[in-house]
Amino acid sequence: MTVTELPPLHVAGRIDRLRRVFPDKGPGGSGVSRGGIDALFVTRLVNIRYLTGFTGSAGLLLVGPDEVLFVSDGRYRDQAADQLAAAGVPARIEISGTEQKRIVHDVAKAAGYGRVGLEAHGVTWSQQRAFASEWFPGAELVATEGLVEELRRVKDGGEVARIRAACHIADTAFANVRSRLVERPTEIDFALDLEFEMRRLGAAAMSFEPIVAAGPNGAKPHARPSDRRIEPGELLVLDFGCMVDGYCSDMTRTVSVGDPGPEARRMYETVLESQRAGREAVREGVDCAAVDKACRDVIAEAGWADAFLHGTGHGVGLEIHEDPRVAATGKGSLATGYVVTVEPGVYLTGIGGVRIEDTVVVTPDGCEILTASPKDLVL
Amino acid sequence: MTVTELPPLHVAGRIDRLRRVFPDKGPGGSGVSRGGIDALFVTRLVNIRYLTGFTGSAGLLLVGPDEVLFVSDGRYRDQAADQLAAAGVPARIEISGTEQKRIVHDVAKAAGYGRVGLEAHGVTWSQQRAFASEWFPGAELVATEGLVEELRRVKDGGEVARIRAACHIADTAFANVRSRLVERPTEIDFALDLEFEMRRLGAAAMSFEPIVAAGPNGAKPHARPSDRRIEPGELLVLDFGCMVDGYCSDMTRTVSVGDPGPEARRMYETVLESQRAGREAVREGVDCAAVDKACRDVIAEAGWADAFLHGTGHGVGLEIHEDPRVAATGKGSLATGYVVTVEPGVYLTGIGGVRIEDTVVVTPDGCEILTASPKDLVL
Repeated sequence: MTVTELPPLHVAGRIDRLRRVFPDKGPGGSGVSRGGIDALFVTRLVNIRYLTGFTGSAGLLLVGPDEVLFVSDGRYRDQAADQLAAAGVPARIEISGTEQKRIVHDVAKAAGYGRVGLEAHGVTWSQQRAFASEWFPGAELVATEGLVEELRRVKDGGEVARIRAACHIADTAFANVRSRLVERPTEIDFALDLEFEMRRLGAAAMSFEPIVAAGPNGAKPHARPSDRRIEPGELLVLDFGCMVDGYCSDMTRTVSVGDPGPEARRMYETVLESQRAGREAVREGVDCAAVDKACRDVIAEAGWADAFLHGTGHGVGLEIHEDPRVAATGKGSLATGYVVTVEPGVYLTGIGGVRIEDTVVVTPDGCEILTASPKDLVL
Repeated sequence: MTVTELPPLHVAGRIDRLRRVFPDKGPGGSGVSRGGIDALFVTRLVNIRYLTGFTGSAGLLLVGPDEVLFVSDGRYRDQAADQLAAAGVPARIEISGTEQKRIVHDVAKAAGYGRVGLEAHGVTWSQQRAFASEWFPGAELVATEGLVEELRRVKDGGEVARIRAACHIADTAFANVRSRLVERPTEIDFALDLEFEMRRLGAAAMSFEPIVAAGPNGAKPHARPSDRRIEPGELLVLDFGCMVDGYCSDMTRTVSVGDPGPEARRMYETVLESQRAGREAVREGVDCAAVDKACRDVIAEAGWADAFLHGTGHGVGLEIHEDPRVAATGKGSLATGYVVTVEPGVYLTGIGGVRIEDTVVVTPDGCEILTASPKDLVL
């Protein structure tokens, strides 16, 4: 499926939804309520893309109660106009390489914004200092955290279609290259095989550097591919994903060329059962921590509680790691349209690791699995 | 050349050189001088790598007047110890996933740091707020800019060897795939050819997404590869580079399959002459702005002053864009050991673009060119 065959994204309503989660200024809009804002200055490019459809590498977005200002430079004059119009985002677009500060300053001043929110997790301290003294000298800057990211948790149909397309490319690529494992490639070479195949199949990029970790290397959850050959009978952890039209996929499979022996088989069966339990726990309204517990209980029962070294999963979308965290310390619950991973693992130092991961969409009654590669241990 | 065949990096002295550029605290160390610091809290990973040799994805470095604290998490217990020992960096290493704040707090408090510098361009506002209230509650945080980046301008022999190796891979890859241009590939497919070939030749990654921009697309200096076929007689701008052991290469060539016609040939000859003039201006002690002027004068003389849409170049090293900027507004002068690009261009909307770029090392008498691909227009 090419990008042009994907269903459209519904971008137009997002800015209004963002305004509805602006921190409140308190009774009468007096601004006395701590953290209330008149406008949000969006600087994280991924959030600007979400709110406007703009895919360029430089942009600024000032969202006020009734108006929106989008600023970029001359490289994006046509693209910005085209993409915002296509998305139905009624922003005032200003293009300048040198006057961005003055443009934003003048708009904020004319609108009388007294309290301007910044994405505190998305601006550097340098930027914040310049914004305070030069861009918004008459306003108070308010540190906000994750306002747009909160909206991004629920994916609409167009977003799910893109994640699904990325998952499908990853599945197809794995099916196409897995037979090469019998040739004892190095981890690096097999990672390149996977990556090249995903790119040939239309992926715009990897969603992260593939993990190809055999034998003892697999005992490190975030191992990097090495020049060590993948030998028969070794547990091999493969964690990879790609991007389609800005959206990520994420999948892990663990395989072995030939029988890896009884302990490895028991590790595998345990993680497979844990992952199934996690998937079955996923549905609208369930606490993220409960999904983590469903996975963790199976592994603890097998005696490997301390060998499950990470959380159960995370949201996936425009970024490979998004809210929510599916972990013992994860806050909140799942809602329909969330796209999350379920990826328990067992890691034994000196022996190896097993991790099995699907990307799923939360539904009212459960979930739909987007990653379709088979879960057979032995190749 | 594999990474293990590269000459060693001389990491050990870098922290002392950093201390010598700490902002001064004024007479008697009273701290009254604006901006003076007792210690620098280094959070930019690329700077931590430069100062310690550590290549992991998570670390913190607190550099005091006599002591160094390095903090990472359990994934990097062995790697941190090995890499810092190999580099000869005598740091106290602490590994913790959950206690990093307490560890840094206790060390800073025990040392009595009254003024702690942050990399204001490398921490988010969120981080700065947490550092101020929780990590260094008894200290004043000072916004520093580019202290380590300033040191990084001068490359030592080991660094130049890595950039040279990356340039050599890019040259070889281009030589290996350029004949495929006669098959009218799409921009995307030829970009993939270039990228895959660099990866096969041992590049760890691209230093940036390759630019493959044919015909009108080449009139945009930062065009992204499209699914448009590269046709005979079109100007084709190819800007690409890769990474070897953390260091980047950067090169642009403009070619045409067959004769692109008289105006394109005149554009090419002008940019070629401009680029030669720029290279010949490069030497120890020359102002960055003077190199830019040498390039710009040739293009202005040809009547295309307004069509040279960007600065002449930039430093290259652990990052693809480093100090110094080689531009009309670039500050300072070149020094022996700087590695910079010289990349003038002419861009005509609707027609196309020409850019020619080398990466060079500054020497006392001129420069050494690290990018060796031929500069023939017509394939």
